[in-house]
Amino acid sequence: MLRSDYNGQNCSIARALELVGERWTLLILRDVFLGTYRFEELQGNLGIARNVLQARLERLVQEGVLRRVRYQERPPRYEYRLTRKGTDLWPVLVAMLKWGDRHLAPGGPPVVIRHRECGGEIDDRRRCQRCGADLEAWEVVAQRGPGMTPAPA
Amino acid sequence: MLRSDYNGQNCSIARALELVGERWTLLILRDVFLGTYRFEELQGNLGIARNVLQARLERLVQEGVLRRVRYQERPPRYEYRLTRKGTDLWPVLVAMLKWGDRHLAPGGPPVVIRHRECGGEIDDRRRCQRCGADLEAWEVVAQRGPGMTPAPA
Repeated sequence: MLRSDYNGQNCSIARALELVGERWTLLILRDVFLGTYRFEELQGNLGIARNVLQARLERLVQEGVLRRVRYQERPPRYEYRLTRKGTDLWPVLVAMLKWGDRHLAPGGPPVVIRHRECGGEIDDRRRCQRCGADLEAWEVVAQRGPGMTPAPA
Repeated sequence: MLRSDYNGQNCSIARALELVGERWTLLILRDVFLGTYRFEELQGNLGIARNVLQARLERLVQEGVLRRVRYQERPPRYEYRLTRKGTDLWPVLVAMLKWGDRHLAPGGPPVVIRHRECGGEIDDRRRCQRCGADLEAWEVVAQRGPGMTPAPA
């Protein structure tokens, strides 16, 4: 990109990073995208300190990226679901994934994202490589790829 | 996305974040994309501690995202340029920018990215909204947008 008169102080990237650039936040959101909605499961998957996870989730709810949904009445229990603002972060995660696949996955992608309808793989513009459709988060499925190693016993 | 048997431990997103998830790193790369190649200018733009900037740049060179290029012989002086691996991070920055524009820029985008050839605005799949071309980093220009406030005096 050519530099224009952009001064770096008033920047949508900087604002986005103020929110999603905190350590763990994008991995928490990745897990929610993959269907992990509950505190205990997130904590187990990520292996992070409970107070850190709690702080990140609270911030994401405050900022309207996640919402708390009650799934049990007595005692009340909640899970975390993506809002539209949260779902809109999918392109960020796909961009990270594709870059990691290309440059940091010598054994091949650990995870492959496919168009659910036709089975085609997603490309780095989030299009289906088979049918050419522009894909949205709810139209894909994440599958084990060639670079996935067996889970530790 | 549906959860499959993805276990979160062997993940291209996590690997990418290990490298570009460090505080300041994506903002440093943003500035290099915009044409700021030298330590003093980066430090001035970002207003971060010199030792932090030095550490981030060294890591990015080590990891092959940036390369040092000598631009002056006596005394020797270097600037930082993107490698192909670095240029490949452009989709991550555009995805962040577009999300920030949509959700964190009530006054409109501070910066608008346009296809240099036809002037069309980029969309969140990095296509030109005017001519439909798939855009690469070297085909666009960053311009002041409606949400840009005047630089502080």
